[in-house]
Amino acid sequence: MMAGQNDCVFCKIAQGQLPAHIVYEDAQLMAIMDAFPATQGHVLIIPKAHAESIYDLPPETAAAILPLAQELARKIKTALHPDGLNILQNNGKTAGQVVFHYHMHLIPRYTDDGVVIKHGRPLTLTKEELAGIAQRIGAQ
Amino acid sequence: MMAGQNDCVFCKIAQGQLPAHIVYEDAQLMAIMDAFPATQGHVLIIPKAHAESIYDLPPETAAAILPLAQELARKIKTALHPDGLNILQNNGKTAGQVVFHYHMHLIPRYTDDGVVIKHGRPLTLTKEELAGIAQRIGAQ
Repeated sequence: MMAGQNDCVFCKIAQGQLPAHIVYEDAQLMAIMDAFPATQGHVLIIPKAHAESIYDLPPETAAAILPLAQELARKIKTALHPDGLNILQNNGKTAGQVVFHYHMHLIPRYTDDGVVIKHGRPLTLTKEELAGIAQRIGAQ
Repeated sequence: MMAGQNDCVFCKIAQGQLPAHIVYEDAQLMAIMDAFPATQGHVLIIPKAHAESIYDLPPETAAAILPLAQELARKIKTALHPDGLNILQNNGKTAGQVVFHYHMHLIPRYTDDGVVIKHGRPLTLTKEELAGIAQRIGAQ
């Protein structure tokens, strides 16, 4: 279960083979400072057991992550007084995933911090097209 | 509990007072198509009861959201075959939140889809600074 992937940096951190600034740890999850932060207080939540992306998380791990994110969000707010917080989790290279071990970014935001996280609205769909897509997803 | 805020579009959708393309619904959560999608298959998960942001979610709601996100991610993958998926949730105006009722974006990604979600690394911190921030957050 806890066996790590050989070349996975987050597995090595979870197993204590690489150092990290640990903010939280339990049997299942860790929260560490992002070593290359976007802003002050940028934290990553990772499962200790290797899972590449959201598709691969055990359900009990998926259920534990957002309550931890909430707890950490509150602690970050109290400690650092950010003006906002982005929670971002990328799956797949096309989505910007770089380390292929699931990790959720908590990125505190500050006025004029230089970070740009905007998904934009490049697509125009009719109501009928939206209804069709909803039906295709729901039918799976 | 389920009383909505007067001017909240997601409360109105949750109460059936405004239309939406519903992908999933239970007593606690809804998943709807984003009416102004970034990409094909852009879905929002919202709690039915009003909560402005992650700080305000009841713990049982927080625990239910990511398992639902996982289920929907799998359905979107099967239905639409995206190349990746961003999960993004913004808290506060400075973080890009526009509707002040908690919502998690599931944004399927396709090669050359024109979407840019990159947090960048504008900050440089020493190991000592990172350790200090970790301690300040952990101490709350």
